[in-house]
Amino acid sequence: MIQEETITKEKKPKTGEVFQHPSIRIPQSNLPRIVIIGGGFAGIRLVKKLRNSGFQIVMFDRHNYHTFQPLLYQVATAGLEPDSIAGPLRKLFGGMKNFYFRYAQVEEIVPEKKMIVTSIGDIEYDYLVIANGSKTNYFGNDGIIKNSFPLKQIPQALDLRSQILQNFEKAVLVNEEDKAKSLMTFVIVGGGPTGVEVAGALGELKKQVLPNDYKELDFNQMKIILIEGHDRLLSSMSDKASKKALKYLKRFGVEVVLGKVVKSYDGHNVILNDDTVIYSETLVWAAGVKGNVIKGIPETSIERNRILVNEFNQVKGFDRIFAIGDIASMKTDEFPNGHPMLAPVAMQQGKHLGKNLTSMLRGKELKPFVYFDKGSMATIGRNRAVVDLPGKRNFGGLLAWFIWMFIHLVYIIEFRNKLVIMSNWIWNYFTYDRGTRLIIRAFVKEKVKRQE
Amino acid sequence: MIQEETITKEKKPKTGEVFQHPSIRIPQSNLPRIVIIGGGFAGIRLVKKLRNSGFQIVMFDRHNYHTFQPLLYQVATAGLEPDSIAGPLRKLFGGMKNFYFRYAQVEEIVPEKKMIVTSIGDIEYDYLVIANGSKTNYFGNDGIIKNSFPLKQIPQALDLRSQILQNFEKAVLVNEEDKAKSLMTFVIVGGGPTGVEVAGALGELKKQVLPNDYKELDFNQMKIILIEGHDRLLSSMSDKASKKALKYLKRFGVEVVLGKVVKSYDGHNVILNDDTVIYSETLVWAAGVKGNVIKGIPETSIERNRILVNEFNQVKGFDRIFAIGDIASMKTDEFPNGHPMLAPVAMQQGKHLGKNLTSMLRGKELKPFVYFDKGSMATIGRNRAVVDLPGKRNFGGLLAWFIWMFIHLVYIIEFRNKLVIMSNWIWNYFTYDRGTRLIIRAFVKEKVKRQE
Repeated sequence: MIQEETITKEKKPKTGEVFQHPSIRIPQSNLPRIVIIGGGFAGIRLVKKLRNSGFQIVMFDRHNYHTFQPLLYQVATAGLEPDSIAGPLRKLFGGMKNFYFRYAQVEEIVPEKKMIVTSIGDIEYDYLVIANGSKTNYFGNDGIIKNSFPLKQIPQALDLRSQILQNFEKAVLVNEEDKAKSLMTFVIVGGGPTGVEVAGALGELKKQVLPNDYKELDFNQMKIILIEGHDRLLSSMSDKASKKALKYLKRFGVEVVLGKVVKSYDGHNVILNDDTVIYSETLVWAAGVKGNVIKGIPETSIERNRILVNEFNQVKGFDRIFAIGDIASMKTDEFPNGHPMLAPVAMQQGKHLGKNLTSMLRGKELKPFVYFDKGSMATIGRNRAVVDLPGKRNFGGLLAWFIWMFIHLVYIIEFRNKLVIMSNWIWNYFTYDRGTRLIIRAFVKEKVKRQE
Repeated sequence: MIQEETITKEKKPKTGEVFQHPSIRIPQSNLPRIVIIGGGFAGIRLVKKLRNSGFQIVMFDRHNYHTFQPLLYQVATAGLEPDSIAGPLRKLFGGMKNFYFRYAQVEEIVPEKKMIVTSIGDIEYDYLVIANGSKTNYFGNDGIIKNSFPLKQIPQALDLRSQILQNFEKAVLVNEEDKAKSLMTFVIVGGGPTGVEVAGALGELKKQVLPNDYKELDFNQMKIILIEGHDRLLSSMSDKASKKALKYLKRFGVEVVLGKVVKSYDGHNVILNDDTVIYSETLVWAAGVKGNVIKGIPETSIERNRILVNEFNQVKGFDRIFAIGDIASMKTDEFPNGHPMLAPVAMQQGKHLGKNLTSMLRGKELKPFVYFDKGSMATIGRNRAVVDLPGKRNFGGLLAWFIWMFIHLVYIIEFRNKLVIMSNWIWNYFTYDRGTRLIIRAFVKEKVKRQE
């Protein structure tokens, strides 16, 4: 039998927290313990790299699955089943010795006790890796927090999907033309990859799917409006990619508003900074993310909601606390404000930290992290995508779209999902159909709580 | 432009209802109007039969999709995505002229005005077809209503799936062995096909999936207990099928309790009628269904929660109101209490009524409904099923299991789903895996409201 380590009451920090569980029951072992907060891209790459490494690994996540976020927009627009883009974390590492998953929320880090506080109890660590990513940044705008649809998690994608379909069910019923227009107007804020991809997918729904479902509606009234504060779309990509994306979106009937931002939204009226008003029942908020900073990290180690790390991903001021992925800000000559908050950075940092931790255990020297930019891409509806490669090469169109599909299939986490996703895509492509247009609400909206 | 029929306030029945929508906007037409309540097996077969029939058809459902209920248990046990067993109703009949779907709840029938009252307004009919099926029968037991898990709808299946997985996440954490046992004990009430199939699928999870995910748990402590009031399982099937089902279930480690019923359940203690107590955090309630009777049908036309119909499915006392499927009770020599509440009966009645309505329109004679029993079947975990054919022939085992799979694939509603389901099944079969073990709560439980 494995011997249980019961963390007794004496060990609890005096923070006034109430613990329902006396212990989180991780077996005691002679191996040094790495606690990882978050099963996103960074966390899972790290664990993979640590297989047979001589550590005990404990991972916390508030979902029991990894979410493949780049395809969330397809769930929101009825292209894919939610289950297709989620990989159960226990399954991913099911065969791995000395790996323990705990389904819980991490509430506080207590560095002076080398311990973290979670919703199921507290646990000591030898090494701590903070990999809990980012959350939607509403810039403190209450109206937007309360009334907009973010797109960072699977339940949110299901919520947006249900909203889109319910709007059309309502539009069929209303007598006032203005109200129908407002129900059929979709405003997407943020011209990054997520915003562009949602807008393109909605354009596809407008052209090829919805008119058949809702014969009674006039689809000239359906408006898709993409709003971006910068003067071009995909501002992290090349100028050429921006221009192509704009061209492709227009072909799908998307109206693009550049250089403007949303001032307020009450659930019906979108007001821009130049006081333009757009009547819309649906505002998709894809205007930015911010780091998920956990209580307990000193203020001096935090900058702009990200945790400052050195080139080894060590958190400023600590030897054995690391941060990787979106939450980490590693300032370099190339990236004076830290790396972009992107999946490839997270994956590379996870993998790299895995190597460094193994080196640390063996008394070897750590190697600095260097980001290898493989390029970036975004897809815009059927048949079109834009790709930037390193070295200022870029291209778009059908070939880019095939490459986009291929890369996403390669990176999606489980083989079974690849099979399901590929058969969905092939089916959708040849039938101009979206099979999953179901109104299944995944949670009762408590929008005020979203910030948490 | 289609001319709108605006039902004004004068037309509303004086029932004290408040209508938010002044009209449900069905275009006026010279065609006689059939209003169908419910998009289940009966309703969709009826609509299919009425294609190009010379009727205007208006269908109401409170979901925007048809649910393939025979496979709900696979969603609940992480074998299939919820979207795989749902077909969007608008899509099913998207190409059909004169068909209108309305996403709404029907609240009352007003036969004297040839009108129904719905959550989105009221509408007149020339012909009314009640096809809204059945709901879980809790036999008025409050503790069971509040604490058990029914399995009639997709959100309920997702809820049960999340519950099963969360139980194991909790069991990993508890120190008290009794509590862990209670979390790992699953009681299924009802030895009909649903109960037997859930028990078998849980047996498969116990043997082949969960021990790999939860290495820390002792799976000898996982109990699956199936309780049936009759003295045999699958009491609607042959004795041989019952015996085989019992044998197969035992092979999967399922404990079967026959001839006993559940007296009460408080969420922790299952108390049987002989005062046996079983400690379990999860009670799956598959002990029965009852008709979804809508307000407005006279008491004299209702018996045991089903609507009495003649051999043409005409509701007792009415010429142009019909009931088909689970809700209809057509008494015959062979079925003195009405037909069994099964999908094949519903499908055949839907199809048959379609023919009769067309005859009615053409002034032809109606033909009485005759149920053609093609046999019945149930599957028990991997590789095993039981099949009863008409004429007392029956068989079980691997062949029966293949036939079960084939029949379900044939009848599932959309081609795309067939592809996805088949690839899931093949994958699950060869890998001993269940891909969708995700905790995604589909709704916040308001169990007291379930009866509605």
